[in-house]
Amino acid sequence: MSKPIDWKILNVDGEARAGVIRTRRSVIETPVFMPVGTQGAIKGVRSEWLEAEMDARIILGNTYHLFLRPGIEVIKHFGGLHRFSSWDRAMLTDSGGFQVFSLTDLRKLTEEGVEFRSHLDGSRQFLSPEVSMEVQAALGSEIVMAFDECPPGNADKETTRASLELTARWAMRSKDRFNELQEKGADLGKREGDPSGGLAEPTLSGRQALFGIVQGAGHLDLRKESLERTAEIGFDGYAIGGLSVGEEKSVMYGVLEYLAPKMPKERPRYLMGVGTPEDLIEAISHGVDMFDCVMPTRNGRTGGAFTSRGKLNIRNAKFIKDDQPLDPDCICSVCQRYSRGYIRHLYQAGEMNAATMISHHNLAFYLDTMRRVRQSIKSGSFARFRSEFLEKLRENEDAIV
Amino acid sequence: MSKPIDWKILNVDGEARAGVIRTRRSVIETPVFMPVGTQGAIKGVRSEWLEAEMDARIILGNTYHLFLRPGIEVIKHFGGLHRFSSWDRAMLTDSGGFQVFSLTDLRKLTEEGVEFRSHLDGSRQFLSPEVSMEVQAALGSEIVMAFDECPPGNADKETTRASLELTARWAMRSKDRFNELQEKGADLGKREGDPSGGLAEPTLSGRQALFGIVQGAGHLDLRKESLERTAEIGFDGYAIGGLSVGEEKSVMYGVLEYLAPKMPKERPRYLMGVGTPEDLIEAISHGVDMFDCVMPTRNGRTGGAFTSRGKLNIRNAKFIKDDQPLDPDCICSVCQRYSRGYIRHLYQAGEMNAATMISHHNLAFYLDTMRRVRQSIKSGSFARFRSEFLEKLRENEDAIV
Repeated sequence: MSKPIDWKILNVDGEARAGVIRTRRSVIETPVFMPVGTQGAIKGVRSEWLEAEMDARIILGNTYHLFLRPGIEVIKHFGGLHRFSSWDRAMLTDSGGFQVFSLTDLRKLTEEGVEFRSHLDGSRQFLSPEVSMEVQAALGSEIVMAFDECPPGNADKETTRASLELTARWAMRSKDRFNELQEKGADLGKREGDPSGGLAEPTLSGRQALFGIVQGAGHLDLRKESLERTAEIGFDGYAIGGLSVGEEKSVMYGVLEYLAPKMPKERPRYLMGVGTPEDLIEAISHGVDMFDCVMPTRNGRTGGAFTSRGKLNIRNAKFIKDDQPLDPDCICSVCQRYSRGYIRHLYQAGEMNAATMISHHNLAFYLDTMRRVRQSIKSGSFARFRSEFLEKLRENEDAIV
Repeated sequence: MSKPIDWKILNVDGEARAGVIRTRRSVIETPVFMPVGTQGAIKGVRSEWLEAEMDARIILGNTYHLFLRPGIEVIKHFGGLHRFSSWDRAMLTDSGGFQVFSLTDLRKLTEEGVEFRSHLDGSRQFLSPEVSMEVQAALGSEIVMAFDECPPGNADKETTRASLELTARWAMRSKDRFNELQEKGADLGKREGDPSGGLAEPTLSGRQALFGIVQGAGHLDLRKESLERTAEIGFDGYAIGGLSVGEEKSVMYGVLEYLAPKMPKERPRYLMGVGTPEDLIEAISHGVDMFDCVMPTRNGRTGGAFTSRGKLNIRNAKFIKDDQPLDPDCICSVCQRYSRGYIRHLYQAGEMNAATMISHHNLAFYLDTMRRVRQSIKSGSFARFRSEFLEKLRENEDAIV
């Protein structure tokens, strides 16, 4: 049977892997960072920059947000999220589960699914494994996430176990409904004519891929059990959910070290919603392949720049007459042209160009870091890259945001 | 003596003129619309787009705003506004007079100048013809504006006359101080090595140009007198100030019709701070060559798009499923790619990409309209262009913002 995506590991260096995911829309080299387009757009950065300058091959869209606004009827009218947003490279959509559990207070969880009130207008809404699969089919992403329940990072064992059990049942239901939807052609992301989009192997079916999610909070035994049950169902890739949700960093790193190497080697491994450049490097050292996080754009909007020498806060008065770029080692179009002093002025003056420029640089820095990571894995020098990268990051400790 | 700018009329069609202004930094075809970069940046639109896509040859900077923030010491540190903002094409700076009289309530006007409180922090500040010239020399713009007093659009004759007299004395003082500053090399906009910037005629001196401003509110006799007294002092170009400041549109059009053709033919004519596409076409029909206005970006930020078929407000629910571009006749990168439905969604979702995209389109529309105007003047068909352009603008009257 033809595959929805094709995944190949090209090089392994310790636990770190360099690989390539072929989808119907893009060829994606891993480890990869996926910019987050929550509402169908990367905040403050036009797609033209993401394509031509940063060469982002895959971005994320959020089911919860798009389900509520503009709503699936509108997305369907336009023929899916690719056509609606005019992004013709790969997309991954999350299931909406995480947002329901983190953004809304008023929710009622049952075996069937979760009833909640929209954070936008208080309207009553319902999401379940089946609804999430239907929404993600309409969005037409290349990679669909199973609908899960995400417990808090510090959840006790009993709570976590109950959540894990529910997530396992929902994963099965997600897969069943997903397969039905694929068979009846509900996926709006299909490309007409050339199902591979000219970018994928001819053996690819052009259908969506479905990833399962491993939960279990900080409990290693439950993480192992969740992984085994998820793998038993069988997915095109596996994600680690429920990290960076309030737990200590040592707990997150402990879970990564324990769990990631146990995940199926022959499938991409995706760490959801994490994190800083340091976090990404750490996770890669344990064999994670895919990442997304809002930090580059969220910090960008409040003046926080990620650089090769650590974070800096452009609001700091010491940058008033600084004619250096945000990161002297960065080759992005912002760093090639604009000084810290100028960007600081724009920020202080309330000009949105400050937010768009810092967000742009931050994404470029994340994507460029991933390129360097891949190169180091390919040349068998990831450990050295990692220690040099982390040492340089600490140079400007005083500039921490 | 070599000239700061070189101005040639290429074609005349009725009163309308097509010409070219050569400065040390750009060759500027007229009639020209100058995007407004109040605080050293065009709001929401990166310079890269203005250069590569819209081919804007000259933009505006506001002395009042930059004087208060980041302040002249910072601008001087960076070596002028071009270097600070990394805009290497031509710039025009206003004198600060208009903003002092429109933005601040607390001000004390004397013969010497105007004392006022900053709208940012309430600090006591002072602007005069001399200070304005010093600030504009530090900014280093290609075109400097004389420091004037701008009376309200509905000012009575006595007030207007007093203001006109003061403006005439200030014009003289502006010119004297301007010349001193040029001689002592205070202009920070000079290009090292090649004073013409490779874009100007070798006969250009590389120094700044100074424009005088005609006031007189809606009183035609005072407008004429102001023009004569300003022309007598002698400037590199002449501007019409004090329009679109609260008077009826018929008054503005009356002043334009009366005044513009009387302005020195051998100098560029600049209508300050005006206006809609209709206003620009009207002024061009009376022989105006240069324009600036915040409308394209200000309206863009609140969802107002200027199109060849009239204005539209993207917030309107009728655009929810509209898969047309903002303007189907526009070739800008926004209209080539994004639909009204998508941009409306971004606007409603509070995504700043909506503001940046509509602002981008609006500027592209203004600049493209000027290109078409120039072409029509060159081919002797401005009258037909004008009537067709205005008729088409009225097609979507129901969509008026």
